[in-house]
Amino acid sequence: MHLNSIVITSFTVRDIRWPTSLDNIGTDPMNLAGENSFGYLQYTTSVDGLVGTGWSFANGQGNDVLCTAIKSLAPRLIGRTLGSLIENMGVTQRKLQSGQIRFMSPERGVLQLATCAVLNAVWDLWAKAEKKPLWRLVADFTPEEFVRVIDFRYLSDVLTPEQALEMLREQEKTKQDRLKEALANDAVPAYNTSAGWLGHSDDKVRELLADAVKQGFRHFKLKAGLGLETDRKRLGFVREVVGKEGILMVDVNQIWDVDEAIEYMKQLSDIGIWFIEEPTSPDDILGHAKIRAALKPYGMGVATGEHVNNRVMFKQLLQAEAIDAVQLDALRLASVNEILAVLLMSAKFGVPVVPHSGGAGMVELCSHISTIDYVVVSGKKSILEYTDHLHEVFEAPATVTKNGTHVTPTVPGYSCDVKEAQFAEFECPNGTFWKSEMGQKMLNDPWRGTLGEQTS
Amino acid sequence: MHLNSIVITSFTVRDIRWPTSLDNIGTDPMNLAGENSFGYLQYTTSVDGLVGTGWSFANGQGNDVLCTAIKSLAPRLIGRTLGSLIENMGVTQRKLQSGQIRFMSPERGVLQLATCAVLNAVWDLWAKAEKKPLWRLVADFTPEEFVRVIDFRYLSDVLTPEQALEMLREQEKTKQDRLKEALANDAVPAYNTSAGWLGHSDDKVRELLADAVKQGFRHFKLKAGLGLETDRKRLGFVREVVGKEGILMVDVNQIWDVDEAIEYMKQLSDIGIWFIEEPTSPDDILGHAKIRAALKPYGMGVATGEHVNNRVMFKQLLQAEAIDAVQLDALRLASVNEILAVLLMSAKFGVPVVPHSGGAGMVELCSHISTIDYVVVSGKKSILEYTDHLHEVFEAPATVTKNGTHVTPTVPGYSCDVKEAQFAEFECPNGTFWKSEMGQKMLNDPWRGTLGEQTS
Repeated sequence: MHLNSIVITSFTVRDIRWPTSLDNIGTDPMNLAGENSFGYLQYTTSVDGLVGTGWSFANGQGNDVLCTAIKSLAPRLIGRTLGSLIENMGVTQRKLQSGQIRFMSPERGVLQLATCAVLNAVWDLWAKAEKKPLWRLVADFTPEEFVRVIDFRYLSDVLTPEQALEMLREQEKTKQDRLKEALANDAVPAYNTSAGWLGHSDDKVRELLADAVKQGFRHFKLKAGLGLETDRKRLGFVREVVGKEGILMVDVNQIWDVDEAIEYMKQLSDIGIWFIEEPTSPDDILGHAKIRAALKPYGMGVATGEHVNNRVMFKQLLQAEAIDAVQLDALRLASVNEILAVLLMSAKFGVPVVPHSGGAGMVELCSHISTIDYVVVSGKKSILEYTDHLHEVFEAPATVTKNGTHVTPTVPGYSCDVKEAQFAEFECPNGTFWKSEMGQKMLNDPWRGTLGEQTS
Repeated sequence: MHLNSIVITSFTVRDIRWPTSLDNIGTDPMNLAGENSFGYLQYTTSVDGLVGTGWSFANGQGNDVLCTAIKSLAPRLIGRTLGSLIENMGVTQRKLQSGQIRFMSPERGVLQLATCAVLNAVWDLWAKAEKKPLWRLVADFTPEEFVRVIDFRYLSDVLTPEQALEMLREQEKTKQDRLKEALANDAVPAYNTSAGWLGHSDDKVRELLADAVKQGFRHFKLKAGLGLETDRKRLGFVREVVGKEGILMVDVNQIWDVDEAIEYMKQLSDIGIWFIEEPTSPDDILGHAKIRAALKPYGMGVATGEHVNNRVMFKQLLQAEAIDAVQLDALRLASVNEILAVLLMSAKFGVPVVPHSGGAGMVELCSHISTIDYVVVSGKKSILEYTDHLHEVFEAPATVTKNGTHVTPTVPGYSCDVKEAQFAEFECPNGTFWKSEMGQKMLNDPWRGTLGEQTS
């Protein structure tokens, strides 16, 4: 199928929300209740049955803002051929974000999420048209093709297209070996966070952890930050269950000031923690660098990324030596093209990429991304978060092997398609769940998921 | 009137857009056509005729996204008393941005703009209830009251409430003198950008500049970045018109990479330029620091701020010694409370605040902000941009004196109210302008204001 013969003809945007807060999934110190939600875009094409699906993520309230933003950008691609769009994805990204709408928040916030949804749909369409899972589409690129999908604007002080080419050519030499590992589901080790949501009781955490150990997991991430005594108790029994070899990570979701983070974490240094995730504002590059420098003598690292909006922020986190793991989020960046730029920079600085996958569908997308990182870019095995909720809603769900590795995707596309039946129940506001008494109560609470008393 | 007796009872959100692109107002290298637009919020209260008005700014397309975001946050204040909201504005700000919606883009992008609109309405209401223009409400605060309106989260590594108190108490000693200057319209010198939009012809620029010099202006800002030859020619005749004493600033709206900015600006060093504004991505703190260090030997400074989303980013720009002027935007930050935090940090680092006021209504708001900066915080005169379009649409328009200073606002409130008659013509999509053939053509172009060829 010639890509120039595939024309984008129309689109739909749907607001779908799963009531995950009812199971305490996604609770953390900043968000006491979250409903995993998508602004869900589908492009139809001139080829019967060939659709491009892309979505971006919200946590319940605000998903309508995301949908409005997607509706604002999506018309830009109507009438375009797939061939013209993918000829230079870097240019497509830049053009998509240009014009009047750019003024609102260039490459940040809701506009960035909407851009991601639109470009995810293009990548999904491209991979489907080539009849390959997305990771394989990218793994089969020549270094020149790889570099052409990236917008290097604002990056040239740390990474030029020429330097990127050189890095990719070096990895080419051994790519076939890693490709074989990927095809054998042995490219991306998993780590577990499902046990660590704050809403769970201690017994529930113990039980989930023991199960995870049995499943072969070796890395575990726990929510923390509710007071030293509580954290010490919780992390103490976690260490007991996972043993000395278990690798622990702790996540506090931005609750601290810089010096506060340093003082607090020093007091947990005896527990053995690989990194503290999101210790402070995700915008505070210099703050993360200060925390990292202060905790290094205590054997603890620093990580952030799930709220890092673009390649320029990641560039600086790397330049400032602020992080030990790049926790990029596949929805927060402007789709695969911008993610590839971050993979390249991370490899250049020698920092492992450990994508954020704490929400519905993120594991589906990131299993492509982590596979690309290993096979094509860094050549080093990293780990990828595995949360075990809502996989059943996808046409091509993510799974893990008995050895605690991610199963490499095989279905053509970017694994974005949600089963159509889900919309009858969970489309907002007209799905049956959201029309129910419980759903209405949740939707009509303007303060849902906030902290503390709001009425006085 | 006791503030606890004023209850917020309902709200309206309206999308208003002025077709400024038809006059080439707001054109720059990144935005070839902009329609100055507001997401316009009004809260009604239990007191007849007392409304709180707040808006945030967009540049045309995307204003509906902003309105959707405001509609998502605005219900949170229904039923609240003004007294409870202003008891601690820092806490009000934090609560307003918390919960599920926070996940989309904490303190960034469209959510930050929407927060600004909501809190602007609270500040407007507060000042109206106290029958004072906003700047005077704040100028009459004790240092303790001033500090209480600020959310210091993420700032304590550079500024604690105690340090802020000390700074404000020091300025208290001489505040009365500066207050007198403010009341005599001699607190805030103006500078001129209306001459510099890229869309204007050379003759038009010459004519506008000569007028501005006659009006007493001494500072002039020009758009640039369209090639060295063009820029040298334009800046050359500008220097001719404004004389040796004229202070020139240049704005390129983020078009360059870091090293490109350095190389380009070095070649303009003979013209005599105070600062280059927005040389690169507004997120690139380390990049601005590098550019500033490189241009310093050439006598040129660096400025940014109109796209800087929050106090954490400004904190770092100051920490990294990246800028010579803090160009905060009154709509980009989360209203007066967050702006005051940035004023304090700027004063602490000794960097002048030169607010961005390039869009409709921004001068109206910033004449309050710059007055507060001089009278209460820095005690040093800075300058404030004056663009002369669309003042006539406001109930309390900003004006300048014959001496080239801003007239200090006298009308109670935050000068946010737009004349009701404007909505009949410019509310989108139903105002008469937007229903016209021209209006429909502009609205239905998904690519309006973008650069280059979009269709192939």
